[in-house]
Amino acid sequence: MKPRLGLGLIGTGFMGRAHAIGFATAARVFDLPFSVDLVAVADVDAADAERARQLFGFRRATTDWRSLVHATDIDVIDITTPNHLHHDMAVAAIEAGKHVYCEKPLACNAADTLAMTHAAETAGVATQVGFNYLKNPLFDLARSLIADGELGDILSYRGVHVEDYMADPDQPMTWRNEPASGGGVAGDLGSHAFATARFLLGPVESLHGRCRTLIPTRPVAGGEPDCAAVLTEDHASAHVSFENGVIGTLEVNWAATGRKMQHDFEVYGTRGSLCFSQERLNELKLYRAGDGATRGFATVLAGPDHPPYDAFCIAPGHQLGFNDLKTIEVRDFLDAVAGRPARGPDFREGHEVQRLVDALLQSSRENRTVCLR
Amino acid sequence: MKPRLGLGLIGTGFMGRAHAIGFATAARVFDLPFSVDLVAVADVDAADAERARQLFGFRRATTDWRSLVHATDIDVIDITTPNHLHHDMAVAAIEAGKHVYCEKPLACNAADTLAMTHAAETAGVATQVGFNYLKNPLFDLARSLIADGELGDILSYRGVHVEDYMADPDQPMTWRNEPASGGGVAGDLGSHAFATARFLLGPVESLHGRCRTLIPTRPVAGGEPDCAAVLTEDHASAHVSFENGVIGTLEVNWAATGRKMQHDFEVYGTRGSLCFSQERLNELKLYRAGDGATRGFATVLAGPDHPPYDAFCIAPGHQLGFNDLKTIEVRDFLDAVAGRPARGPDFREGHEVQRLVDALLQSSRENRTVCLR
Amino acid sequence: MKPRLGLGLIGTGFMGRAHAIGFATAARVFDLPFSVDLVAVADVDAADAERARQLFGFRRATTDWRSLVHATDIDVIDITTPNHLHHDMAVAAIEAGKHVYCEKPLACNAADTLAMTHAAETAGVATQVGFNYLKNPLFDLARSLIADGELGDILSYRGVHVEDYMADPDQPMTWRNEPASGGGVAGDLGSHAFATARFLLGPVESLHGRCRTLIPTRPVAGGEPDCAAVLTEDHASAHVSFENGVIGTLEVNWAATGRKMQHDFEVYGTRGSLCFSQERLNELKLYRAGDGATRGFATVLAGPDHPPYDAFCIAPGHQLGFNDLKTIEVRDFLDAVAGRPARGPDFREGHEVQRLVDALLQSSRENRTVCLR
Amino acid sequence: MKPRLGLGLIGTGFMGRAHAIGFATAARVFDLPFSVDLVAVADVDAADAERARQLFGFRRATTDWRSLVHATDIDVIDITTPNHLHHDMAVAAIEAGKHVYCEKPLACNAADTLAMTHAAETAGVATQVGFNYLKNPLFDLARSLIADGELGDILSYRGVHVEDYMADPDQPMTWRNEPASGGGVAGDLGSHAFATARFLLGPVESLHGRCRTLIPTRPVAGGEPDCAAVLTEDHASAHVSFENGVIGTLEVNWAATGRKMQHDFEVYGTRGSLCFSQERLNELKLYRAGDGATRGFATVLAGPDHPPYDAFCIAPGHQLGFNDLKTIEVRDFLDAVAGRPARGPDFREGHEVQRLVDALLQSSRENRTVCLR
Repeated sequence: MKPRLGLGLIGTGFMGRAHAIGFATAARVFDLPFSVDLVAVADVDAADAERARQLFGFRRATTDWRSLVHATDIDVIDITTPNHLHHDMAVAAIEAGKHVYCEKPLACNAADTLAMTHAAETAGVATQVGFNYLKNPLFDLARSLIADGELGDILSYRGVHVEDYMADPDQPMTWRNEPASGGGVAGDLGSHAFATARFLLGPVESLHGRCRTLIPTRPVAGGEPDCAAVLTEDHASAHVSFENGVIGTLEVNWAATGRKMQHDFEVYGTRGSLCFSQERLNELKLYRAGDGATRGFATVLAGPDHPPYDAFCIAPGHQLGFNDLKTIEVRDFLDAVAGRPARGPDFREGHEVQRLVDALLQSSRENRTVCLR
Repeated sequence: MKPRLGLGLIGTGFMGRAHAIGFATAARVFDLPFSVDLVAVADVDAADAERARQLFGFRRATTDWRSLVHATDIDVIDITTPNHLHHDMAVAAIEAGKHVYCEKPLACNAADTLAMTHAAETAGVATQVGFNYLKNPLFDLARSLIADGELGDILSYRGVHVEDYMADPDQPMTWRNEPASGGGVAGDLGSHAFATARFLLGPVESLHGRCRTLIPTRPVAGGEPDCAAVLTEDHASAHVSFENGVIGTLEVNWAATGRKMQHDFEVYGTRGSLCFSQERLNELKLYRAGDGATRGFATVLAGPDHPPYDAFCIAPGHQLGFNDLKTIEVRDFLDAVAGRPARGPDFREGHEVQRLVDALLQSSRENRTVCLR
Repeated sequence: MKPRLGLGLIGTGFMGRAHAIGFATAARVFDLPFSVDLVAVADVDAADAERARQLFGFRRATTDWRSLVHATDIDVIDITTPNHLHHDMAVAAIEAGKHVYCEKPLACNAADTLAMTHAAETAGVATQVGFNYLKNPLFDLARSLIADGELGDILSYRGVHVEDYMADPDQPMTWRNEPASGGGVAGDLGSHAFATARFLLGPVESLHGRCRTLIPTRPVAGGEPDCAAVLTEDHASAHVSFENGVIGTLEVNWAATGRKMQHDFEVYGTRGSLCFSQERLNELKLYRAGDGATRGFATVLAGPDHPPYDAFCIAPGHQLGFNDLKTIEVRDFLDAVAGRPARGPDFREGHEVQRLVDALLQSSRENRTVCLR
Repeated sequence: MKPRLGLGLIGTGFMGRAHAIGFATAARVFDLPFSVDLVAVADVDAADAERARQLFGFRRATTDWRSLVHATDIDVIDITTPNHLHHDMAVAAIEAGKHVYCEKPLACNAADTLAMTHAAETAGVATQVGFNYLKNPLFDLARSLIADGELGDILSYRGVHVEDYMADPDQPMTWRNEPASGGGVAGDLGSHAFATARFLLGPVESLHGRCRTLIPTRPVAGGEPDCAAVLTEDHASAHVSFENGVIGTLEVNWAATGRKMQHDFEVYGTRGSLCFSQERLNELKLYRAGDGATRGFATVLAGPDHPPYDAFCIAPGHQLGFNDLKTIEVRDFLDAVAGRPARGPDFREGHEVQRLVDALLQSSRENRTVCLR
């Protein structure tokens, strides 16, 4: 009989749903350390909360997230609300002794993420940040190939995360365009790009970034006037230097018409290289120098050789999906809660990513290279 | 409060696991008509049954599948056992008044599938066969484009299903190589290829097939002698004529080194065409004639415009996985059980597919064209 | 000082131009055994002949192809006319002691190709047939990998050649739709598909084919009535057995909307496989079994490791084009004329290909397997 | 009878050969304004010069390039020597009244390219720089789609040119590593990347670049010591702002193991986007917003709709190669010599590209944004 773990979910939107699916699926895919009890779900909108309760199978619904934090039958808090709410919710949960699973980006600025990290480390609770692309079994393969020297000395890196959900100039302002809410592409997609870069190559030493607004004004829904200047960036790029000496570039853009999920990377070493696109998340391209007339990038298809793919399917090439990555993330969080070796990314890592986001914005503002050490 | 539906699962292997994941996920992704009660799981191996009970969350485990069929707290039987067991299990379940969800292929020959179909239609129970590739939202798009005349008159079709799980000559004999067990690639992959062809283009009028064994002998695990002649085919191809006049070819092969999931089709019409590969199940390639200098195959990425993708994820390009297709299949089965419009494929359709498999084998045996009407 | 070789070109259309470009380019790319003297060009249309003379750099133009055959300053005859003219032209040239370079297919039926072959072999002249896809450096790599056992025992093959130049039902009748002129897709594209199959795997033992007309009537340009029944096939498919035991399928289609150059093959062996598409003629996909977690199809890009790519360009990845394949073909023909080891395909090989085209048509007509031995 | 044009070629290496092939092929592919007379070829190595004379069909060979410049039977000088020689050769040729066709990059620094440009404009001779990727028919399509507003307002751009010919740390020093010879990737590949960016989007207003040496020391062939510090950059990246307001990034790298020809661009507009890779130079990917459920990037295959593809081949999808782009370049140069509308890039454009290369190096050296206006 597995120990019970009470879960409280805050937020019922895109990510709230993804997490709910992840918890449900993880219980069937993995031999989890806990029997997760879906205790309560909270949303500012009562109807949304109730709908989520029914659909996701929680026992209680509420508009008061603090009631989850203080509930004695809840052990872990899962935060999927807009970014600017993460800090207060997480700190309150931590102070109440809960383990915390929080969507990315961890917060809106490094001061907040540092406070959250300190709180968690002081309290000794387990934490996890939802950079779910890192949960792709092929990312583990990529990191191993790099770490094991299979690619020789790594020389350079390219990372991009480009989508088009803000490409339409008629798309109205949202919280994504509020600087105070952590809006802007640097935080939204840049955090993903930095998380992946750090996962593969480790800490960044310095960067020189440029952030630009591509669509200068946007409609304001029900606004007066009905249009306003956009104060957040749509596009950001950076020259990056990693502590291990690797030279890299990053580019993020949420106004790239046609791109749905160009979270891509290329890693070049003296003896091999890797190439990946999240639009084909079950494929990793690997090149090894020295094969003479038959050299070429091999398209490695995800399969049971790439754990935990095998927990989802015993046959190769059948394809994992986006929600499966969330499912792996849930497993990893629960392992961390159980005291098993943590795979992260935890709040400390989320903070390091946020430092890079802040550095990117600062570098652009001040038009100078920012050192991270 | 949703009505309760008691589920009994028979078989705990590759597909048993996929179904269990499907039921768990479907409850969170879709607004299902029932609250599914995971009553019991059966497997010939008691340890496997118990493991599955715990992992998949069933209340009871047993080695006696008949106990599930006769349990009063079970309303639907889900069959994921080897093919030659499907008939007896399904018929027993139907006779006990249960709805039946059965993995593909429906049985080992058309006599059996016909008996199963008659039983189900007589009993009036809901049925579903696990041709889950048909559940891809892009298959619905493909069928609509064809049916709506967007491609003009359809002229020709190519269907393949090629994998490599039997490509290694040192791979020992399994039930897949037993003719009496429905072994051979025609039943295993050919059924998939025919199911897809029928889904897109409707009934087949006639075919001329050829079935061949590529690896003539295989080791017999613990056998004496330790090697035996293979009596089942590894490769089958067919010239096909559809009732609507379309000309097609089919090819299936389970000894194609390197291929993990080449379940592909190409459909050519007078005004457009389609191209798909299951190895990239989130992409459908669409060509429309007449765009002049900018014509080309468009790579359509699955997204919320392709329901029920939106139930899994509200953002395009995030990718569905193999298990998500099973989840949609579960929803469709439960809708059928609830009397909602059935999307199939039901046993009648499974029987039609099996008739094609049998015709393929017969055509090869007799080296003549077989008419299906 | 290189010996002079006088060239007479018959035909100035698509292929006449490609050959003229090939001769001009070959002289700069390769160290040819001859200095080719562009003596004369012939076309039934005097204006076309004169235009070609100027553009291609010939000294004389004529409407009388026989004058070329009998010219004493001409050593080799290059035939790029419609297929039904090949036989008479080639035989006349051979009888006049000329070496002959003839576009594919060699003729309209195997009786003609056999006569041409006998004439050439009796006369001892050099011959070449224009199956230029065989001249791709990556085809040599593919054949070597197969012959050297790098793929293990070859088990199966798939060959297709699908285009769309006849996909529009409003496309009027041409000589391509005249059975007596060697019309039909079996001769036009089937000959390419068979040539490639033989190049890679050797002789075909038997085949069962089906040929179908997809567009039953077509307009007749200036005709009365203005529309007529099409008597040639648009689509042909075949089950094929090679002498070496390999099982294969072939499919050709010239009415596949959107396909411009799907001359593709897949070769599956017990230890590896190959995959190629002429639409990306500089890429060969190679899979080797047994690489564990990093196995996958490698995309081999043509480069200097694949001679004679290096004669065109010393840097890899720069891409050869269609005309470059013709240029290699020209070199191979001139080498054969010079008595250097011939790479073919010569008339004998062109005849073997034609036997397969005839067998495909016969098999379909008689709905039976045709043996080639 | 076409007017004669005497050609003198300087340099017989990689590009010398490509130009020779280009002139030979262009004469057959295009209706050129001149009959080009291959007068003389020069190389510092007498044997190379003589070999080139024979292979490429020139009448004279010499080690004295100045003799070509002063020859009265030579009208145009074609320069394919190492970069640091371009300036003196071109200026001497211009002063002798010759038209000049010069390989890229035009010279080693903007002072030289400006002098060359002034000389040419003063003398009124025709000039051309060998940025041959610009000659791809699909580049014309891309530029038209941008200029015609088919993609809406252009918002952002990504350009890369990444190869691996310097990726091996054991690769010895060459002139490419001599700063004084215009060595370094910024000049070698950066010039290509800038040329393409300007071709598509026009002038660059400012950039912030970073140049780095990835392989700090290299062997010195026959050197004492046998190894030395590399003073040129292997990798360069830039944030770029175009005068038209578009935001872009550029990245060049000649030490990217496995990349043979990643000369790629992506262009994002409010209503559509483009994506291209030189590794598949016959494909342009085009996305148009607003197609609902069937939107996606269309892979446009080069064909007769994209002139001058039709001059090479009348059928689509047959593929142009690298040398064909040179052939188009030759035509464009000869048209410019003939006073027909010039397509460029001329020396003025080569100078503008060089200004960008210099700005990239300066920006990195001074770690500041450099304005180009």
